[in-house]
Amino acid sequence: MGKAIGIVGGVGPFAGTDLVNKVFRHTRATRDQDHISLFLTSCPAIIPDRTEYLLNGGEDPAPGLEKCISWLSSCGASAVGIACNTAHAPEILSRVRVPDGVVLVNMIEQTAHHVAQMAKGRKAFKVGLLATLGTLRCNVYDKYFPDLVKPDEDVAESVHEAIYDSQYGIKALSSVSDKAHDVVCGAVEHMMRKGCSAVILGCTELPLVFSGGHSYKSIELVDPTEILAIELIKATEPGKLALV
Amino acid sequence: MGKAIGIVGGVGPFAGTDLVNKVFRHTRATRDQDHISLFLTSCPAIIPDRTEYLLNGGEDPAPGLEKCISWLSSCGASAVGIACNTAHAPEILSRVRVPDGVVLVNMIEQTAHHVAQMAKGRKAFKVGLLATLGTLRCNVYDKYFPDLVKPDEDVAESVHEAIYDSQYGIKALSSVSDKAHDVVCGAVEHMMRKGCSAVILGCTELPLVFSGGHSYKSIELVDPTEILAIELIKATEPGKLALV
Repeated sequence: MGKAIGIVGGVGPFAGTDLVNKVFRHTRATRDQDHISLFLTSCPAIIPDRTEYLLNGGEDPAPGLEKCISWLSSCGASAVGIACNTAHAPEILSRVRVPDGVVLVNMIEQTAHHVAQMAKGRKAFKVGLLATLGTLRCNVYDKYFPDLVKPDEDVAESVHEAIYDSQYGIKALSSVSDKAHDVVCGAVEHMMRKGCSAVILGCTELPLVFSGGHSYKSIELVDPTEILAIELIKATEPGKLALV
Repeated sequence: MGKAIGIVGGVGPFAGTDLVNKVFRHTRATRDQDHISLFLTSCPAIIPDRTEYLLNGGEDPAPGLEKCISWLSSCGASAVGIACNTAHAPEILSRVRVPDGVVLVNMIEQTAHHVAQMAKGRKAFKVGLLATLGTLRCNVYDKYFPDLVKPDEDVAESVHEAIYDSQYGIKALSSVSDKAHDVVCGAVEHMMRKGCSAVILGCTELPLVFSGGHSYKSIELVDPTEILAIELIKATEPGKLALV
């Protein structure tokens, strides 16, 4: 077996399979055997909530993330991605040790490269961020984006609830509820009114609202999950990358 | 970590994530941490095509299946399912060794139990099978279903092509093409005309055509992928089973 992709999923579960499916979709393949070897862990019970840890002194998710990466490495994964933006907060990720021979592809860094490419030659290009409160308040994206536009506090809180609410939240249900859909679309429009030309869907649950779409009304949607999928292919079998 | 589910995916890739998502959908959960630990291997490059092996003397898929199960076991999986009907042919599966402490949940057996329940008290209940040519010709389902209705040869071949064709087949594309959709729906109608009240979608690519639906026109659709998902939950954390 050649190089293989490893995905730390489960954070949340459907975001993990969304990343896996995006790897498959971006692979040049006409039969099963053309696909790149891939391993997924989905073990959320050992990865406490990232925002709770960052903002409210909750349990530490780093050891569980590290355990998952070690399983993926033992199966043969050489390039690993974590399907959770908030887990990329330096307060968490900097403490996650990665075994020798494994490259951890950083979703936030790669999204920053992608957005820098989008912005080239475009005057007055403003990019906004929708995310969990953990990602927003811990400035996970800010170091890459000096002029990052963030939502007003009430909108930020409503998006966080659309992700987490136990009744209508994206994490709680197996399909996106109408209420979560409307809250997230409303938040994108809010970012439009703030002058953004593009919005980063900076929580892996958010792209599930748009089913892989790259725009909403006149605003461009940046999907870090898809960017990570493409970079995982580049880090393993770049010749198999299909830009769809 | 308690008991964990292992899934041998990649055969094909989207059928693997379909099974994973069906496990998530059938799990009683309102937050990430409520989900059962799960591992997926998607390594089709080491699992040659099952029908090719069974009918045309192709390479043996058994060693690759065994390797995947051994990876899943080493991560801690206690109940494993294989997201491929054809791989359940005794000519293949009987040679796949399973490590101590791992239960291999047999999708075909579980589908048989499910259909037997459906049939209870219904006179003239006839069940049909759509599948790959490997599954049909090697009688993978027949021992459980003495009166199993199979499609006419030309219809069987057209379904096989809808799964495998490198242009429009389900394995070749990241979404089901109109042509594959129409061929499979036409085949279900053909089974209806043969007097079936229910049809087993006996290749894990086929449920992708119906997006989880349980009927088409007046015929009931039996989805072995969904049945396997439910049984994997029962084999690990039965208290978490949600019948949706």
